Amino acid sequence: MSDAHDTPGCCDALAIDPAIRRDALARLRSIRGHVEGIVRMLERDDVYCVDALKQIKAVQGGLAKTSDTILRGHLKHHVVTAHERGDDDAIVAELMDVLKYR
Amino acid sequence: MSDAHDTPGCCDALAIDPAIRRDALARLRSIRGHVEGIVRMLERDDVYCVDALKQIKAVQGGLAKTSDTILRGHLKHHVVTAHERGDDDAIVAELMDVLKYR
Amino acid sequence: MSDAHDTPGCCDALAIDPAIRRDALARLRSIRGHVEGIVRMLERDDVYCVDALKQIKAVQGGLAKTSDTILRGHLKHHVVTAHERGDDDAIVAELMDVLKYR
Amino acid sequence: MSDAHDTPGCCDALAIDPAIRRDALARLRSIRGHVEGIVRMLERDDVYCVDALKQIKAVQGGLAKTSDTILRGHLKHHVVTAHERGDDDAIVAELMDVLKYR
Repeated sequence: MSDAHDTPGCCDALAIDPAIRRDALARLRSIRGHVEGIVRMLERDDVYCVDALKQIKAVQGGLAKTSDTILRGHLKHHVVTAHERGDDDAIVAELMDVLKYR
Repeated sequence: MSDAHDTPGCCDALAIDPAIRRDALARLRSIRGHVEGIVRMLERDDVYCVDALKQIKAVQGGLAKTSDTILRGHLKHHVVTAHERGDDDAIVAELMDVLKYR
Repeated sequence: MSDAHDTPGCCDALAIDPAIRRDALARLRSIRGHVEGIVRMLERDDVYCVDALKQIKAVQGGLAKTSDTILRGHLKHHVVTAHERGDDDAIVAELMDVLKYR
Repeated sequence: MSDAHDTPGCCDALAIDPAIRRDALARLRSIRGHVEGIVRMLERDDVYCVDALKQIKAVQGGLAKTSDTILRGHLKHHVVTAHERGDDDAIVAELMDVLKYR
């Protein structure tokens, strides 16, 4: 623990919240199954374009919701305390890399 | 089945283009591996939120490009000929369901 | 110029549908007022970041719906007939430039 | 006014950063001009759908970049200090309302 505190951006201090991790994991496993379903769909030569597009859109929605869950936890557990820890510049820079338009 | 081939808007006539299907399939298989990687990442209790967010964003980008590939093929092979087939209202309605904002 | 009016694929043939144009125009005028409101909001030095972000998000929603309206009309009036006119390659290429992910 | 400065979460304490406000204001004024240009474009009955769609897409890009600028400032000046002020729950909830998928 004392060693960990000497490591910049140490893993323990900023690890994902356990409840959020379990929720995100369940969502990602479901998404994995959904993607597997689209792979099987595309293995058939009579698949219709719009059916594939609909399924991809559904997966994108699932990923966006998973992302929201993790982001909310990150804000709550790590970002609002960044100034106290003193890593606020790094926290903001890396978060904007993920959130920015392009 | 032989009748179906003569029916405007029939399943065979509107199946995805083979080259596009192979391209989309290769992309989706890669995405499936990427999602599997995120699942394994989230199975570790020291995963960092922003690392998970970055991976999810990468998958979203991969899905968007796959979607573009299929959409381009659908426009080229099915949408531009819809008026000739006579199924234009249905083609536009189902495509807008996929493309519209919400 | 007069000849051009008789040529399939000419400017008139592919002009926006009048009803859709009127609808899009009304939406854009409303959006113009909304943007003007955000400009005035940002002219005050006590504006709160999240209030500005909310207003920008609302304008983005309005633009997306206007875009959907025009897109639906474009598909219905111009894209589904492209193969008959013979400009299908150009129609698909320019539409994908607008629709593609990046 | 001096009292207001002592109130946690008060308007002054959380007002937008002046430099960011000026940047966002300049961007919004440019966007206002762009929207005005689309209004004039749609007032002509020979406007082509795809030209309007392109212009709307450009405005959406401009808004997204303005939003990023404001968001970055909000994170840097208000969110990373939320736990110290004690308004972290409110800060996270209102920010997620703006950032979430739907």
